[in-house]
Amino acid sequence: MTKNIVSSRISKSYIAVAQNASGRNLNVPVYRISDGLKGPTIYIQSSIHGAEVQGNVVIYHLLQWLKSNTINGEVILVPNCNPVGTNIKAGEYTLGRFDPVNGTNWNRGYYYEKDQVTRFVESVTEDESITSIKERFRAQIDKSIANKLAQNWGLGLAQQLNLKLQQIAVQADYVLDLHNGPVSTRHVYIPEYAKDAATAFSIPHCIFIPNVFAGALDEACFCPWWTLQDALDEKFGSAYDFGVEAFTLEMGSQEVIDFAEGEKDANSILGYLATKNVLHTQDYAPAKMQRLGVYLSDYKTLFTDFGGMVEYCVAPGQHVLSGEVMARILNVDELETDQGMQELRAPCDLIPILHFPSASVLSGTQLYKCFTKYFTLSES
Amino acid sequence: MTKNIVSSRISKSYIAVAQNASGRNLNVPVYRISDGLKGPTIYIQSSIHGAEVQGNVVIYHLLQWLKSNTINGEVILVPNCNPVGTNIKAGEYTLGRFDPVNGTNWNRGYYYEKDQVTRFVESVTEDESITSIKERFRAQIDKSIANKLAQNWGLGLAQQLNLKLQQIAVQADYVLDLHNGPVSTRHVYIPEYAKDAATAFSIPHCIFIPNVFAGALDEACFCPWWTLQDALDEKFGSAYDFGVEAFTLEMGSQEVIDFAEGEKDANSILGYLATKNVLHTQDYAPAKMQRLGVYLSDYKTLFTDFGGMVEYCVAPGQHVLSGEVMARILNVDELETDQGMQELRAPCDLIPILHFPSASVLSGTQLYKCFTKYFTLSES
Amino acid sequence: MTKNIVSSRISKSYIAVAQNASGRNLNVPVYRISDGLKGPTIYIQSSIHGAEVQGNVVIYHLLQWLKSNTINGEVILVPNCNPVGTNIKAGEYTLGRFDPVNGTNWNRGYYYEKDQVTRFVESVTEDESITSIKERFRAQIDKSIANKLAQNWGLGLAQQLNLKLQQIAVQADYVLDLHNGPVSTRHVYIPEYAKDAATAFSIPHCIFIPNVFAGALDEACFCPWWTLQDALDEKFGSAYDFGVEAFTLEMGSQEVIDFAEGEKDANSILGYLATKNVLHTQDYAPAKMQRLGVYLSDYKTLFTDFGGMVEYCVAPGQHVLSGEVMARILNVDELETDQGMQELRAPCDLIPILHFPSASVLSGTQLYKCFTKYFTLSES
Amino acid sequence: MTKNIVSSRISKSYIAVAQNASGRNLNVPVYRISDGLKGPTIYIQSSIHGAEVQGNVVIYHLLQWLKSNTINGEVILVPNCNPVGTNIKAGEYTLGRFDPVNGTNWNRGYYYEKDQVTRFVESVTEDESITSIKERFRAQIDKSIANKLAQNWGLGLAQQLNLKLQQIAVQADYVLDLHNGPVSTRHVYIPEYAKDAATAFSIPHCIFIPNVFAGALDEACFCPWWTLQDALDEKFGSAYDFGVEAFTLEMGSQEVIDFAEGEKDANSILGYLATKNVLHTQDYAPAKMQRLGVYLSDYKTLFTDFGGMVEYCVAPGQHVLSGEVMARILNVDELETDQGMQELRAPCDLIPILHFPSASVLSGTQLYKCFTKYFTLSES
Repeated sequence: MTKNIVSSRISKSYIAVAQNASGRNLNVPVYRISDGLKGPTIYIQSSIHGAEVQGNVVIYHLLQWLKSNTINGEVILVPNCNPVGTNIKAGEYTLGRFDPVNGTNWNRGYYYEKDQVTRFVESVTEDESITSIKERFRAQIDKSIANKLAQNWGLGLAQQLNLKLQQIAVQADYVLDLHNGPVSTRHVYIPEYAKDAATAFSIPHCIFIPNVFAGALDEACFCPWWTLQDALDEKFGSAYDFGVEAFTLEMGSQEVIDFAEGEKDANSILGYLATKNVLHTQDYAPAKMQRLGVYLSDYKTLFTDFGGMVEYCVAPGQHVLSGEVMARILNVDELETDQGMQELRAPCDLIPILHFPSASVLSGTQLYKCFTKYFTLSES
Repeated sequence: MTKNIVSSRISKSYIAVAQNASGRNLNVPVYRISDGLKGPTIYIQSSIHGAEVQGNVVIYHLLQWLKSNTINGEVILVPNCNPVGTNIKAGEYTLGRFDPVNGTNWNRGYYYEKDQVTRFVESVTEDESITSIKERFRAQIDKSIANKLAQNWGLGLAQQLNLKLQQIAVQADYVLDLHNGPVSTRHVYIPEYAKDAATAFSIPHCIFIPNVFAGALDEACFCPWWTLQDALDEKFGSAYDFGVEAFTLEMGSQEVIDFAEGEKDANSILGYLATKNVLHTQDYAPAKMQRLGVYLSDYKTLFTDFGGMVEYCVAPGQHVLSGEVMARILNVDELETDQGMQELRAPCDLIPILHFPSASVLSGTQLYKCFTKYFTLSES
Repeated sequence: MTKNIVSSRISKSYIAVAQNASGRNLNVPVYRISDGLKGPTIYIQSSIHGAEVQGNVVIYHLLQWLKSNTINGEVILVPNCNPVGTNIKAGEYTLGRFDPVNGTNWNRGYYYEKDQVTRFVESVTEDESITSIKERFRAQIDKSIANKLAQNWGLGLAQQLNLKLQQIAVQADYVLDLHNGPVSTRHVYIPEYAKDAATAFSIPHCIFIPNVFAGALDEACFCPWWTLQDALDEKFGSAYDFGVEAFTLEMGSQEVIDFAEGEKDANSILGYLATKNVLHTQDYAPAKMQRLGVYLSDYKTLFTDFGGMVEYCVAPGQHVLSGEVMARILNVDELETDQGMQELRAPCDLIPILHFPSASVLSGTQLYKCFTKYFTLSES
Repeated sequence: MTKNIVSSRISKSYIAVAQNASGRNLNVPVYRISDGLKGPTIYIQSSIHGAEVQGNVVIYHLLQWLKSNTINGEVILVPNCNPVGTNIKAGEYTLGRFDPVNGTNWNRGYYYEKDQVTRFVESVTEDESITSIKERFRAQIDKSIANKLAQNWGLGLAQQLNLKLQQIAVQADYVLDLHNGPVSTRHVYIPEYAKDAATAFSIPHCIFIPNVFAGALDEACFCPWWTLQDALDEKFGSAYDFGVEAFTLEMGSQEVIDFAEGEKDANSILGYLATKNVLHTQDYAPAKMQRLGVYLSDYKTLFTDFGGMVEYCVAPGQHVLSGEVMARILNVDELETDQGMQELRAPCDLIPILHFPSASVLSGTQLYKCFTKYFTLSES
């Protein structure tokens, strides 16, 4: 890791996350901003999926703001955290969601092992302080990641990339992973145990997720602490709270750069940081707005049974009633029959959150992801 | 070619344009609509570039209209004319502009040889009728294409596909090839010798192209007749007019299906056919609207010198003054410096007609195609 | 499912496993060969991964043989079982291992739920016959798959494809899934509970796999029966054996068609079927040959830490000693330094079974898969 | 261009040929080796097509040799000259022949304009020395390339890359562009006017090409000088010879790295340089071997009319008689009929030089490229 000093408050370093076929390091910039004041550590990365670029603009605006504003604690910004994914073009678009060699999703190789938490719990005594537990636990996770990275037979590219990022993220109290949907509203994934965070962001759609690890950064960051809290609560019969939170923020649509929207998203994040006492100004706060929530099990994917060419008839965020037309599918081989145009209707009341970005689909394509059985978290 | 009867007025047949790796024929549907009345032959195809799907909707609407309306002459509709290109996905999008095996543009393998026209001219006498010349010339082109297709060592996939389509198109008087731009206005390519056609379509942006063959269908259809006319004019000192026209119509953006817009585009084509006395109704006519024209040499491509992530700041169709910001390019590796965001400005007064569809670009990417030195063809 | 009669002994039908963007069904041929004699059902499919084509040649030879030879039971042959994967070209090669839209491995969407076995066990009484249990259990699996396929919101393409194939495979006693490695020896995956099958194939390298389901066809076919046997053994204290076996056979390298090798592989499968009393001839039997075995946990992947251009210095099947050079990696950016060529050495004694098929690799690429701690199953 | 001193005889610099989506320069290393002695300039580049990597090994060996041997003139080595193409993976292979955004072949954007030669000829007087003409002509080409690169609206990526390389190559007397075929023999493209060079390489198959420019580096390097020679010969009636030669060397198969073979190829190039008085040793000379030649018009491509799965039955370099089976094509959809396996036979006596690298092909795929009507240039 090389290190550059941008100013007395801001450092910029690079970590080499991969090497390409030309033998060159692929580096990720890491900005650290601190005024040396006590406070939490915040980790924010963007573009782990290569086509999801708008988070980079959000970080751009955050960095401009941080250049001239004092903060408590430390903010770590890691834009363009996947230089492999960003730079794989297939046709005019970016093939950014998975490794083109083997199909591995770039956001599924982070580290978490439940057994390790169980073993750690044995080492905790009732009188150990929160601070001490937190420090020891963090050190243990850090060491496990380092061991994984050092293993003899090597590791796959996506996993190496993920673990090198996680080595930084594991130091943080609050972790934000900035993503985009295909054609999408702004929405956020929130662990159920940190449900109150929903009203700390200015994001209209919130998905509450359980303590299940499927490889993503947010899960890798919150599962250990959630599991540890639960185990200690049970062991000692009291409520532990380590205050570690991690979120995946979906900042609109992929393949779009919009500086004005990015500034709003940066302000939304500053609003969240304001609730954590990171800012020295009163200028930012969560918006007063309608927020809708849904449990992950009610966040449903609508697949098409037909192959064909699709008109998306409802917009992300729109309230759709059961039976309304969501898509019209043209069958170019049957233009003269009544199979020429088929309609796909909403199977229940729902809100589409995102839809597929291409008009041409095979059968079994995920056309929409939808809120069903959603509920109101706050009113505007 | 198998043949199905849809009704007494409409037939549907299939031509096998390719065979896939499973050994199965890839068929293209060919609809022929005729009331047995005298009149011109019109050939309309769509989606030679796989991601350019909206033309299929236009043909869908044309077919609905033709089902219940009498016409002079014959209309031939060939939707989804490239079943290979339509079905190559690379990530979520369609890799439809070129053969993924070798990069060959699907719209560059049609047939035209200037020498053949020159030789044909020798066979024409001053007293030969237009009808006879037209028939003999068509037969000769047809035979040349058949010879090419039959050659001993075989032909490349794109060229085979093109020639099989051209075998049908060559029979037509008016040829319309329906395309889409990346993110694009509606615009049309018009051969200079058929300039008046500009006002027969209801399309705001018209590009006038010279008698140069670069492999595309429109060129392959008009170059022979244009060259023949010029040669006969010179040989006999009188004005020959065979009345063959061919156009590439760009019906908005790729990767979009929109039934309502498609109906408008179908009506625009019916307006053109009205000027050719194909329709029995007075309901359709070219719109009274502003139309702007440009010569191909003034239709300029703006490339970026930077790699980065791009915000497209001007919309297709918008009038832009020299020096206005057209794009902002984020350099994710320099967010803290003044290289973090660079602006690309208009090198002269221009109208962007289309822009690149992805936010992530390497240096040397074609960001915009623009009208410069354009002129007014008609006023609204 | 349409049905064709090839002969009184052989039928050919098609199942539609998907629909492409042109709205056309993608069909898979299903051959059923039977002489109406009692015996087991054998299911053999090939090319679930599109670039792994040699299994199709094996099925071709099996079909030729079956045309003129009597068998007990029924053989079901499903060549080219993934018409989507086979037909996705990316450059000159076939992008066949995963769905190009979302990276989903085509061999990870089959159905198995352990809970269902547990519930079924409750319904079994000590006096129920093996035949009856087998029949009821099969019917239950079949129904579960049908339910999954029928669900309201639809299913992803790979999963639909897998489940439609599994609906046929579930009827079989012996299931063979024909694959290829990248550049590979012939090897076979064998469930530990059917370990003896290792000597029934004429394949030199055998990998023994535990009762763990990760989505593949072989696992989906043997896990239910293995789990059921274990549960009934425990419940009733006696040894149940349903005689259901499933294997993944790796028939050499991908992107290769070789008719002579395919005939040998077909004969190897006939040798296996001979041990199951399917054949009426004594002409086929497992070969007398050296066979080596390894447990899955000792079948190791060797990744590269460098990006660069790779010479593969050891051949699949070769015995390699700890410390021998396995690969030389050229760093094109450091040709003048001693970093210009780096060597990757064997971390222990091993046999490489397959290696990556391309010379250009990023760091984290899986260069080799290797037998370590292997043992001899039979001697030549 | 940054510059590093490797030793007093060898310098290494980098030219930035592109910028990726992360805003980072993609650099190409340029080695210059000279002992300050009079002699020709030799330019050697490799891997303009990303999957054609073996030329990098050849340059590696050349560089090792040049480190410890004195030469006349200067050798310029440019390995891995296309860092974009090398690093585009699509599945396990490298999508290296064309820009994945638009299909542009990476070897078609070099500069040559015949008109410019014609205009230059006017400026030459009968008494101007060869040296002076050569210098002035080179300066003119150099300036034209610089002008193209500097133009206002920008240039496409492949063309920029090509022109930046050509700016170096244009200074050379002998230009070698190292390529590979798909699965291929070693062969070389030789301009007809430099036909004698055929026996200066140790390469068995030689293709003689006319004075036609289609965008490749060798053409861009020899067409101007060939055209100039012809024009001056005609103008002044005497034989001008500028001694500029350019070749495309096809060093075996793509996607293969082989250090031992690379050393042989390096020695073959040293043999060529020996004939140009570049070496101070007698150790290298063209091999005594059989060499076969063919005119480009007799170097034929054999396409398949069927789609299917292909066994390549003849090896590159093998002498094949008219009517011999060259390929067997499996039709996986017709395994039970006599269409199940079709044979493709040689249309005449020929030598296949290369074949397609994948077993799965659509109709219209280039299966083989073949010498026909070839002749012997030298005997072993």
